Amino acid sequence: MKSFSPPLAGAEKLLELWFGNSSGRSGSLRRIPRYELDAMLNIAQCKVLQSAHTEFIDSYVLSESSLFVSERRLILKTCGRTRLLAALPSIIQLAADYADFDQVVSVYYSRKNFLRPDLQPEEHRSFDAEVDYLDNFFHDGHAYCMGSLKQDRWYLYTYHVPQPITKLADHTLEILMTDLDEDVLHIFTKEACENARDCTERAGIDHIVPNGTLIHEELFDPCGYSMNAFLPKSDHYATIHVTPEKEFSFASFETNQDIVCLYKQTKEVLKCFRPGKLLMTVFANDNSTKGREAQQQLWDRELPGYKRTNVQFVRLEVFINLSDIIL
Amino acid sequence: MKSFSPPLAGAEKLLELWFGNSSGRSGSLRRIPRYELDAMLNIAQCKVLQSAHTEFIDSYVLSESSLFVSERRLILKTCGRTRLLAALPSIIQLAADYADFDQVVSVYYSRKNFLRPDLQPEEHRSFDAEVDYLDNFFHDGHAYCMGSLKQDRWYLYTYHVPQPITKLADHTLEILMTDLDEDVLHIFTKEACENARDCTERAGIDHIVPNGTLIHEELFDPCGYSMNAFLPKSDHYATIHVTPEKEFSFASFETNQDIVCLYKQTKEVLKCFRPGKLLMTVFANDNSTKGREAQQQLWDRELPGYKRTNVQFVRLEVFINLSDIIL
Repeated sequence: MKSFSPPLAGAEKLLELWFGNSSGRSGSLRRIPRYELDAMLNIAQCKVLQSAHTEFIDSYVLSESSLFVSERRLILKTCGRTRLLAALPSIIQLAADYADFDQVVSVYYSRKNFLRPDLQPEEHRSFDAEVDYLDNFFHDGHAYCMGSLKQDRWYLYTYHVPQPITKLADHTLEILMTDLDEDVLHIFTKEACENARDCTERAGIDHIVPNGTLIHEELFDPCGYSMNAFLPKSDHYATIHVTPEKEFSFASFETNQDIVCLYKQTKEVLKCFRPGKLLMTVFANDNSTKGREAQQQLWDRELPGYKRTNVQFVRLEVFINLSDIIL
Repeated sequence: MKSFSPPLAGAEKLLELWFGNSSGRSGSLRRIPRYELDAMLNIAQCKVLQSAHTEFIDSYVLSESSLFVSERRLILKTCGRTRLLAALPSIIQLAADYADFDQVVSVYYSRKNFLRPDLQPEEHRSFDAEVDYLDNFFHDGHAYCMGSLKQDRWYLYTYHVPQPITKLADHTLEILMTDLDEDVLHIFTKEACENARDCTERAGIDHIVPNGTLIHEELFDPCGYSMNAFLPKSDHYATIHVTPEKEFSFASFETNQDIVCLYKQTKEVLKCFRPGKLLMTVFANDNSTKGREAQQQLWDRELPGYKRTNVQFVRLEVFINLSDIIL
């Protein structure tokens, strides 16, 4: 992602929304016209740099991170001083107007602690403020802080409309890395690489994602990198963002792919970025064998070369299909 | 425990300290003279009402909850507006002066969220304030908030000196209950019972603790109940405190006993108090079979008659003997 003034660093806000229609009618978020998405992103204070489309998913590399739109799911990840939550009413309205979705059936809003919360827009200045804001839209959401309050930690707001249907397998792996290796950081600069594809290859990012993954990426000037990727024949995605300034280096990896073992993929990600510290989460619902396996492996053993300071497991019981998170 | 003005309710602060000597010398906290304990409790703003002593443990029922002193472990639980943490320097000094212990090897400070934090003394007004205070004494402690930030939740500060020796099996079960059944509440009043022993029997508290447990208890005027119990031939204890005012009823149960199955005991506790809501924690180190079993049972199934809203598992990796907590 593009470079920042030092105190902001790269920590991202991540919103994943699943929509539905209370009368059971089908719809698709992909019917939302591009100019409407642009207007929504304008509220969040970011804009589209690149887009790519498959049968299942629309992928947008943004000036500040990424947007993925599939039939019923919208994922918006933004960094820096962006006002992600300010765009929420617009997203809900667009889903109603164009996709015939009158219900947000699942909400996940999460982020790592900010280094300088005081530099954030008002509604993002504290997790309490974010929870208050989200509570205006969702009745009885849950809010968690995971990890030691004294170290890097991870906040999650989640809300679900109980649904009688069995959900498909679903999981998300997210790895938030800081203190990256300097040689690695150098790759994500205009000084070292001519273009974004160069970065992808030199950093070995193409080895992280499963074979057959389509990648579109952006190299910022003078430094910074964003990549969106998606697998053919599914709405599975991966996304990577790198803030390569040495003083506040940050990289994030996120995916819901179910082809490669997530534990092995995590090791590849660490091999690529060599972070000094990392914070990772694995969401998985009951039906996700891959997600469950990764949770078990991460619970049972440490990642080679890293000393774990704590691990936490939450079972969210508010909805019919249990979802677990491991941090 | 004694009755409170409504907004304070009964929520307790709980401090468990384990001591040691860096040169490996033995010592005993039980050598601290009573007048010194009284002075320490005075700082915390509570006093001894009853005491009982066995070969292994000194048990004190306080005007505000309980104190247990065994060879290397001190447990102080205080409620209301007490200044528990203000007594910490005094406890550490007494351990050095009388027990030859120059090290606090383990610290657990925990509490449920306060209903009215603004009524607490300054150092207890927020968990952040408590963490800051504790950090003055312990280098690199960890701090957690477990449970949904929007509901009842549980705060823990913990610190450990890594120790190469294998610790003995150790676990603690704590159950914090609110919205108690009105018929049950009535028992813990002078109106209903002549004395504390009456309460113990009529409420069936003697059925909660293992056979052979020695109980000493206090019935407050006009209402409120405290009980300390200990098992012969061990430093195992149990303690119960009841605030029976209907508008803010609260009861707590805590034990480290290893005779009776903890899951079964939990069911007995709930049968006795019939709370509308409860928050429970099970600490267990690797060597505690009983504690591990209870964690597994509580993870796998709900407690009969109760709907679980969330369950969380933390592995504390900062010390050599892993300890787990389930909430």
